Amino acid sequence: MAWDRGALRVLDQRELPSREVYLRCRTAPEVARAIRDMALRGAPLIGCAGAYGVALAAQGLTRVPRAAWRARLEQACRLLLDSRPTAVNLRYGVDRVRERARILLEEGADARRLAAALKAEADAFTEEDLECCRRMAELGADLLKRGSNVMTHCNAGALATAGLGTAVGVIRRAYQLGRVRHVYPCETRPYLQGSRLTLWELMRDGIPSTLITDNMAAHIMATEHIDAVIVGSDRIAANADVANKIGTYGLAILAKHHGIPFYVVAPSTTVDLRVSSGRSIPIEERSTREVVEVFGRSIAPAGARARHPAFDVTPHELVTAIVTEKGVVRPADGERLRRVLAGPASA
Amino acid sequence: MAWDRGALRVLDQRELPSREVYLRCRTAPEVARAIRDMALRGAPLIGCAGAYGVALAAQGLTRVPRAAWRARLEQACRLLLDSRPTAVNLRYGVDRVRERARILLEEGADARRLAAALKAEADAFTEEDLECCRRMAELGADLLKRGSNVMTHCNAGALATAGLGTAVGVIRRAYQLGRVRHVYPCETRPYLQGSRLTLWELMRDGIPSTLITDNMAAHIMATEHIDAVIVGSDRIAANADVANKIGTYGLAILAKHHGIPFYVVAPSTTVDLRVSSGRSIPIEERSTREVVEVFGRSIAPAGARARHPAFDVTPHELVTAIVTEKGVVRPADGERLRRVLAGPASA
Repeated sequence: MAWDRGALRVLDQRELPSREVYLRCRTAPEVARAIRDMALRGAPLIGCAGAYGVALAAQGLTRVPRAAWRARLEQACRLLLDSRPTAVNLRYGVDRVRERARILLEEGADARRLAAALKAEADAFTEEDLECCRRMAELGADLLKRGSNVMTHCNAGALATAGLGTAVGVIRRAYQLGRVRHVYPCETRPYLQGSRLTLWELMRDGIPSTLITDNMAAHIMATEHIDAVIVGSDRIAANADVANKIGTYGLAILAKHHGIPFYVVAPSTTVDLRVSSGRSIPIEERSTREVVEVFGRSIAPAGARARHPAFDVTPHELVTAIVTEKGVVRPADGERLRRVLAGPASA
Repeated sequence: MAWDRGALRVLDQRELPSREVYLRCRTAPEVARAIRDMALRGAPLIGCAGAYGVALAAQGLTRVPRAAWRARLEQACRLLLDSRPTAVNLRYGVDRVRERARILLEEGADARRLAAALKAEADAFTEEDLECCRRMAELGADLLKRGSNVMTHCNAGALATAGLGTAVGVIRRAYQLGRVRHVYPCETRPYLQGSRLTLWELMRDGIPSTLITDNMAAHIMATEHIDAVIVGSDRIAANADVANKIGTYGLAILAKHHGIPFYVVAPSTTVDLRVSSGRSIPIEERSTREVVEVFGRSIAPAGARARHPAFDVTPHELVTAIVTEKGVVRPADGERLRRVLAGPASA
């Protein structure tokens, strides 16, 4: 994802790994559609996209009477916020630029200044995500011992962030340090982010990897030596419960059963202190067509009923540690989470 | 699967649910190929197919000198036994008809009598499977309470047996009795037996069912009320460890974590007393192409490395009960298993 002459240039992740296709989003609705249709995905990345979406809305204000600016921007923010319900980063990204807009409107900024400042704010938000990834990669790599075999789920990689990735960022850095020997990405049905995206990233970096279907995880844990499971997150509640891609909760139970540490890597913008526990995190229920069709062909009888919760919640008791850019939350509980987020002074 | 004018008529399960295509297997090698390529699958059913495969080999003996009969039959048995390594039923089916052939050859039977007798032996083996299914369905349905929601994996249905099915046989009977309200079949990657076959069977019988991807199982257990997980088996060791379709072991761990009973339904021909524990059961490693391609299209980057263990082993400690036609093995341990197999006199 990159800003390119007044538009957001987005790698269409639905086409990976077979083709690298880029979309140009010129307006907030175009960004919202790219998020909703999952051309662009990954909690940190959709936060950055949301921020740029508001900046794009500001670009359109030159053609609108000043009296309508606030409503126009508000409409764009709503559209962006409604594009996906689970990842809280999206709200942070949108709110950050919205707040900057509010101040500038109060100051009487003109349309041009507004657009430039909001774009700069989105840039800053994105730059912070990049820096977060670097920091989490260092902290997370420290948790792994030399020559570890690790398992990961979905795509918490460079494709999901502005930087190195969260879980995959840790794996990348740990591999450089000789702390990762082999990676098992789970394919992550129904969207196959593991096979299409994570494996693609790992292979480009030359990190030895073996794809498994989601239902092989337990067998691989029992028969190969797995040292850690490392995943990202879409939202973390105040009590340190973790919402992440469907399948994460099951992996955490399997890891516990096999005595394998289970690490969550996520920037502090993933934490939502307004939500007391995982039970209150809204879980997006996506179209069942994404479950019963692969490449547009049906894998189930006509008229089949299916479920498609896109996320699940892992209770904090199953999480060994949460790695944020502000520090490692270990044990993963609400008290420790608050202390780490508050910074070193109070940690 | 049915005997039809000197050949075995086989529903090609690879084409389901979109098309009902039948193959005609006229020779033992054709049966072996149908088993290996999974046109025909399911541990009990491939046992029956193996039995008919030997009978088909006997049909061909009219064109062969008598001195070569034994070697010809032996060659056919080997080919059939080598077609898939994990299900022990295949060995029972082949051995049963092979033993009948040995006796008839010693008696000096002619080719015509041999062929007719071996076909009759395969018929008897198949009829027994059918009767087993009926009996297991009754015993298994007794384990469920009124209005249960159940989860199943892979296809342990009519398509996997000569009769009602094993796990799905129990579900069918329990549904008739009002003991099953709703079924969640896991899709069962990579071959999708759950979505293609089990859901097809359930929908044909009008049993309310909702398809889930394998990685949704834990979330569904945590958020819906699941009363039991019911699966089949490809081989059960002497200590009651259970080999079954990849993903079964993980489901058993998840069931234990959620306090849900985990039932295995399998005829006594699935038990292999020659194998002391699950660790000694050979686990078939199939082509990784079946993992990285769906409908012939790649879901992973070119050159991707993958694993494809087709089965896994569930330690007996995770199994609540094993339902066989001879009785319910509960607790599922080696001692109780031997007693149930030995019959009511010693139980």
